[in-house]
Amino acid sequence: MYHEFFAQMRKQLAQLGTWLDAAAAHARANDIDPAELLQLRLAPDQFPFVRQVQISCDTLKLAASRLAGKEAPSHPDTETSLDELHARVRTVLAYLDQFTPHDFADAAHRVISQPRWEGKVMSGADYFREHALPNFYFHLTHSYALLRHRGVPLGKRDYLGPLSLHLP
Amino acid sequence: MYHEFFAQMRKQLAQLGTWLDAAAAHARANDIDPAELLQLRLAPDQFPFVRQVQISCDTLKLAASRLAGKEAPSHPDTETSLDELHARVRTVLAYLDQFTPHDFADAAHRVISQPRWEGKVMSGADYFREHALPNFYFHLTHSYALLRHRGVPLGKRDYLGPLSLHLP
Repeated sequence: MYHEFFAQMRKQLAQLGTWLDAAAAHARANDIDPAELLQLRLAPDQFPFVRQVQISCDTLKLAASRLAGKEAPSHPDTETSLDELHARVRTVLAYLDQFTPHDFADAAHRVISQPRWEGKVMSGADYFREHALPNFYFHLTHSYALLRHRGVPLGKRDYLGPLSLHLP
Repeated sequence: MYHEFFAQMRKQLAQLGTWLDAAAAHARANDIDPAELLQLRLAPDQFPFVRQVQISCDTLKLAASRLAGKEAPSHPDTETSLDELHARVRTVLAYLDQFTPHDFADAAHRVISQPRWEGKVMSGADYFREHALPNFYFHLTHSYALLRHRGVPLGKRDYLGPLSLHLP
């Protein structure tokens, strides 16, 4: 089940890659400086677009590595363009492709800790459901909402990606 | 596992209830007409706040009922105030409280259809992971983002709700 949920989130992170291309095309067509898009924010004390994308990447990368008991690769937050952000997304997609269902065999019972939890811990099952998954969707959706707010033409299909629909 | 994910989403829908109270307090303190908050939107062709909340409610209600093979109660979209929206949230929370893990025993293999899928179907497992859960978080996060955009003081803890942290 973890591997399937990661495949789902991986699919939606790949969709975010396509939003970055749509944002670049929108900027070209409307004489918008792409650097302005990276600094978009919905509230003065919320993270700007560039951080929303970086955190979407990191939330997914760290959730997979923590639940599999692996060391995650470090990705410094140095992106200054939409292309560089797309490269960051591709790096995380490739990292996620290395995981197999077997990697998550012990995920539910791992002990997860984070510095900000001040010595407390969560089980892998609780961490995934209460923290990693909702946070991933929080930052993914904020990335989407920021682009929509600035006029980038995106719709629900761009968010969800292809569905496993079939004839009955 | 379905019952646990629904408990998580129920918890976050209850958090949305607290955001509505924070929005009402913010409106009172800043001489904002609460009716204006209901019509907030981030893009001209996106749904306004009132619809984001209603769809958050419906996505969760319908996902639970479809995956359990039950008939969902009908909730017409007639809310015209923050209080009425909060009442709608409470109604859905109470509805979700009736479900037991046993109700979802056959969830993964149910055949799910929707009018907009034009005769195609999804398995319950695919529907939950690819459609219901991402859509719930999409509309929940848009509800949050709209309030943050209008200055309502909310933070990540208000989004996630209480976490199952414990001492190691």
